[in-house]
Amino acid sequence: MSADAAAVHGSRLLIELFVMLGGAKLLAELFARLRQPTVVGEILAGVLVGPQVLHLVAPSETSQVLAELGVIFLLFNVGLETKPAAIFKVGPTALLVAVLGVAVPMCCGFALMMAWDGKPMEALFIGTAMVATSVGITARVLSGMGLLDTAAARIILGAAVIDDILGLLMLAAVASAAQGRVNIAEIATTALLALGFVAAIALLGAPALTRAAPHFSRLRAGNEFFVVAVLLCFGLALAATYIGVAAIVGAFLAGMALAEAVEGNHDVHQQVRGATEFLVPFFMVNIGMQLDLAVFSNPHTLLLALLVTLLAVLSKLLGCGLGARSLGPRGALQVGVGMVPRGEVGIVVAQIGLGAGVIGPPQFGAVLFMACATTLIAPPLIRPLFARAAGSEP
Amino acid sequence: MSADAAAVHGSRLLIELFVMLGGAKLLAELFARLRQPTVVGEILAGVLVGPQVLHLVAPSETSQVLAELGVIFLLFNVGLETKPAAIFKVGPTALLVAVLGVAVPMCCGFALMMAWDGKPMEALFIGTAMVATSVGITARVLSGMGLLDTAAARIILGAAVIDDILGLLMLAAVASAAQGRVNIAEIATTALLALGFVAAIALLGAPALTRAAPHFSRLRAGNEFFVVAVLLCFGLALAATYIGVAAIVGAFLAGMALAEAVEGNHDVHQQVRGATEFLVPFFMVNIGMQLDLAVFSNPHTLLLALLVTLLAVLSKLLGCGLGARSLGPRGALQVGVGMVPRGEVGIVVAQIGLGAGVIGPPQFGAVLFMACATTLIAPPLIRPLFARAAGSEP
Repeated sequence: MSADAAAVHGSRLLIELFVMLGGAKLLAELFARLRQPTVVGEILAGVLVGPQVLHLVAPSETSQVLAELGVIFLLFNVGLETKPAAIFKVGPTALLVAVLGVAVPMCCGFALMMAWDGKPMEALFIGTAMVATSVGITARVLSGMGLLDTAAARIILGAAVIDDILGLLMLAAVASAAQGRVNIAEIATTALLALGFVAAIALLGAPALTRAAPHFSRLRAGNEFFVVAVLLCFGLALAATYIGVAAIVGAFLAGMALAEAVEGNHDVHQQVRGATEFLVPFFMVNIGMQLDLAVFSNPHTLLLALLVTLLAVLSKLLGCGLGARSLGPRGALQVGVGMVPRGEVGIVVAQIGLGAGVIGPPQFGAVLFMACATTLIAPPLIRPLFARAAGSEP
Repeated sequence: MSADAAAVHGSRLLIELFVMLGGAKLLAELFARLRQPTVVGEILAGVLVGPQVLHLVAPSETSQVLAELGVIFLLFNVGLETKPAAIFKVGPTALLVAVLGVAVPMCCGFALMMAWDGKPMEALFIGTAMVATSVGITARVLSGMGLLDTAAARIILGAAVIDDILGLLMLAAVASAAQGRVNIAEIATTALLALGFVAAIALLGAPALTRAAPHFSRLRAGNEFFVVAVLLCFGLALAATYIGVAAIVGAFLAGMALAEAVEGNHDVHQQVRGATEFLVPFFMVNIGMQLDLAVFSNPHTLLLALLVTLLAVLSKLLGCGLGARSLGPRGALQVGVGMVPRGEVGIVVAQIGLGAGVIGPPQFGAVLFMACATTLIAPPLIRPLFARAAGSEP
């Protein structure tokens, strides 16, 4: 029996992995056949196999780690397909999109909660939770359609990096405010460090790596280029968290800095793609597993969740659309929709507010619902909007 | 501060990953420059960054999961480079190597412990812990040298699969014996299931998949071949644990069944290689992290550890060498050395014995030491033995 116990322990991990991977790919295939975005299928697979429906798997340390690895490789891969020059060209527009895309949702969220029950600190937290775009989903859809090199896609990627920095600065600010103290100097330091980090990698990293890449083959441990690339990805992801921005920003910047060096190396690109394809489904399934359907059982909470979600969508559309109005109406709409998905940063904000006693479980549930709903809403809107654009401007 | 706490939680994972990956690759590079096997460098990196020396990381659920994924992808990748026909050709020799390679270490371990303190049940457990070869290390070294298609390599791979089945059957037998009951019918059922599973995949799986592969492109979710391959790998790894053999046997068989289908698909091979290269270092580092240097502090335990290790090496060399004597002296030596590394199965046996109170902490420490030492000893012996052979028989 003890021998069986050892085998069972090993297979519990394998069962979890197989259910998550198999479920994600089954629903992705189903959605592809229905001409719907495969990411939506993968997220719904998480709802299906997770604690809400079939209860085959639950969020665990393992699923969290694989999800984290998945989103890091996803953004690294997107970075590899993004040349720094292409982002710089859209820099001013991306900056405008990011700033308006942060300000408008923040104000709308604050106003909604002040109207809902009039608690300023709660309103501040919900507003902040509505700020940060999670670009992984949009990047996955656009990458799948081969549209990462359109102007709208570049603006979305550039704005998402800036948006993330702004979102994390606001998080630092409201977290200090919840403790009754706001340290302006600390926040300013974080802001400067974050901007300096991004600028240094984007401006200096890419030329340096393009020049260094031919020397990677001097290393002798085998498969040198891939090893260096992955270490750079994780090194910059780690550096990003120290500086105060999300790990995925570091991974994206690492990819971007390597983009030109990797361009001529088909094998390295395929190797990164292999690790990415294996790990990304865990990220998607993990989102779905965290969706709490219990929020529907209380009509009051459900109403709040729907209002927060509606406002999250409209405010991002408005803010980012205004920022990208130079692209014309369709381009502005593309950028706005692409910035709609919210993700883990919003959930982290809400968790901190919950822990500090500033927001209650219903408000937390509403934010969690909003994060999942905006993620599910975006891909079906992105595809037709970009497909038509690709058709009319080949 | 709460915001920092969230960032710190995220970066703890990244620090662990970066230290393990970076340490492994740094020492691999160093060993490559010293013309030593890179796997030894990666395992020693685990000793170095682990609890024994620098204490930067410790074995955790995360490191265990990544290590398990690493060894599954490693054997899957080795399977992809192994055509079933090549194994069948060496079938009878592989069977003889496996049987003698199980019987001789079992008898030697039993005799050693009877002479040491004369407890039959303890001797049975230590003997069993010395049985199962862990083929991952040897496969990694031979794969790195491009020698997986030599006769000796094929015999090692084939014998390792049979050896694993025999080892797990013995584990089931001694685990029952520790509880004072031996269920012959149960063990016979496991044996038949395991043999049927291996035969079915090897004989029917490969032709079926070679015929099915062209139809994979009918799937629409993107990157179909890689997705099907990975799901097959994890599905068979899971099936293997249900049947009672190690997950890596299932992964190896999945790779072997796909070998011909993948042969013409360079991209899929590179994608699997990417996932493998990323995950395997965690397997190696995890071995090193588990080495307990405290065993050296007690001279009595140290002597036992050295005796068990010496006997583990000599008995495997003798048993497997005898089984492969038809290859001539050098071939027999190659096979014998290739089968020396023991791994997780031996440690599991010892853990069960420790839990059942049949063996004590010193005996457990000796087995752990033996598993690490045989893993470290083998690569430096494999390389010159095979290199000379490759030179003389090009």
